[in-house]
Amino acid sequence: MTLGSASARPTSSRFPSAHSLTVGGRLFLIDCGEGCQMQMARFKVPFPRLDNVCISHLHGDHVFGLFGLISTLDMVGRVAPLHIYAPEGMQKLLNVISDFFGAVKYELVVHTVKCKEPVLIQSFKSLDIYAFPLRHRVETYGYLFREREPQPNIVKEAIGEYNLTLEEIGTLKRKENIIRQGKEGEMIMLEYEKLTYKPFEARSFAYCSDTAPYPKLKEWLMGTDLIYHEATYASDLKALSKTTAHSTSKDAAELALAIGAKKLVIGHFSSRYRNLDLLLEEARGVFPETFLAQEGMIFDIPQNVSIKKKR
Amino acid sequence: MTLGSASARPTSSRFPSAHSLTVGGRLFLIDCGEGCQMQMARFKVPFPRLDNVCISHLHGDHVFGLFGLISTLDMVGRVAPLHIYAPEGMQKLLNVISDFFGAVKYELVVHTVKCKEPVLIQSFKSLDIYAFPLRHRVETYGYLFREREPQPNIVKEAIGEYNLTLEEIGTLKRKENIIRQGKEGEMIMLEYEKLTYKPFEARSFAYCSDTAPYPKLKEWLMGTDLIYHEATYASDLKALSKTTAHSTSKDAAELALAIGAKKLVIGHFSSRYRNLDLLLEEARGVFPETFLAQEGMIFDIPQNVSIKKKR
Repeated sequence: MTLGSASARPTSSRFPSAHSLTVGGRLFLIDCGEGCQMQMARFKVPFPRLDNVCISHLHGDHVFGLFGLISTLDMVGRVAPLHIYAPEGMQKLLNVISDFFGAVKYELVVHTVKCKEPVLIQSFKSLDIYAFPLRHRVETYGYLFREREPQPNIVKEAIGEYNLTLEEIGTLKRKENIIRQGKEGEMIMLEYEKLTYKPFEARSFAYCSDTAPYPKLKEWLMGTDLIYHEATYASDLKALSKTTAHSTSKDAAELALAIGAKKLVIGHFSSRYRNLDLLLEEARGVFPETFLAQEGMIFDIPQNVSIKKKR
Repeated sequence: MTLGSASARPTSSRFPSAHSLTVGGRLFLIDCGEGCQMQMARFKVPFPRLDNVCISHLHGDHVFGLFGLISTLDMVGRVAPLHIYAPEGMQKLLNVISDFFGAVKYELVVHTVKCKEPVLIQSFKSLDIYAFPLRHRVETYGYLFREREPQPNIVKEAIGEYNLTLEEIGTLKRKENIIRQGKEGEMIMLEYEKLTYKPFEARSFAYCSDTAPYPKLKEWLMGTDLIYHEATYASDLKALSKTTAHSTSKDAAELALAIGAKKLVIGHFSSRYRNLDLLLEEARGVFPETFLAQEGMIFDIPQNVSIKKKR
């Protein structure tokens, strides 16, 4: 969910960068601009469930909401550690804030991100999170959330047809073929590809803000389903986007097209745009499945469940 | 105008403490909780006109909006210095933030407030600002804005009737009597009290947050027209208000009554109150002219203009 779609200068309707992400009941926060906790309250994001915050870079419009959020979590009696993934400097910053405003009673675990290509920064049962470098004026990282490939399900009818043992079922689920000896001593191969199916497609989401266009992202994010990409300007301000190390909405759309994304969400809009139609239009000219990040809006990746009743 | 009426934990509708004040075209900010700049944008407070910010104390819910505001003012090209009045520590805090997020191009002038009784901290042509100590868990100050007593106006008809010279008019405006020699050598006294009138009543506003009830405020704020006072709790939580060094709405009302205020605005409400009727009711039981601080609400002190046409 978009909690903040503004670039550095907020407007009367747009808050600085902040997004929540829910995967399988887990709640993540990606960037935490000023007012993030108020937006979470406003849009009923169950923030005590938050365990992981990914910060792209240490610019105020991506960070200034963190201090208040950390303090509020303390006030509501949090005991579980809060994990914060961020470029170098975050630990020092949090130490300073804690010196001024007091330490919180739960643990803040800072994971310093430092990489030149995608690295796995956290793994959960069915989800991996990678950080990858972006190209901005300061050290900046994007985050890729990728569901793990699910274990294949056994085609129901095959169990009876072949009298599959529990051990054999395990073999097939590990994507290994079964070799049996037939009544006449012949070898029978039971192929896992024929007797199993993928219960659903693993989904992926990439977050890219702030960044100038960066060709390596095409390779790194190939096949990502949903991509959030900053689009601070329209194309007529291409020159300004270069000097500030930002992107136009067309840049964002070109990346989405190149990686074969299903959906692109653009955000981090310059305060000069009261109306965002131009940015949307330019992006849709390249990549039709583009949507505007707007406060409170939820962008869903439907879980593509396959139900295979018959072979 | 109230920009934030919450206590430490904001709610879906209440932002942390922040208030703007306009006196004779000058814009002041009193406390600057997280999201203050977004509230200013939302309620069209012309924030580039801001020159003076008064911070009561260094708790996050009164300060965390300052970093973003300072940065946004830089982005919109501010050149004039910004004056910040705050307890000790503010300069150091701003230095740290500037180390992390970069220095701004205009000057931040920090005035460290330290006093045990009211002191004048700033004077403008027609306005004096005083700081005075409050009683909280950390060093905390309230602020008193007091218009200067206006120079008296001359009753129009007196000019012709007594053929007042420019010099004599100056004398009367300085509140001095004129002594003339009559035709027969007798002394004639022209009394300024009879020949002048006060063009309007000087107004005053006091801001008291956060604080436990503090008897000295009665003396220091006597006769203040409008008072904002924190009212974190209702009376049933009096014990909690003591341990946290806060006030109940009844405490606030008792002070307003004791100083003969015209109007009391209560704020800094605990997040436990979804509905604020109880707090308002309890306060109005003591001081009927009590109002709830609510985001976007303007509390005016009408300028009581006297037009004296005839003596």
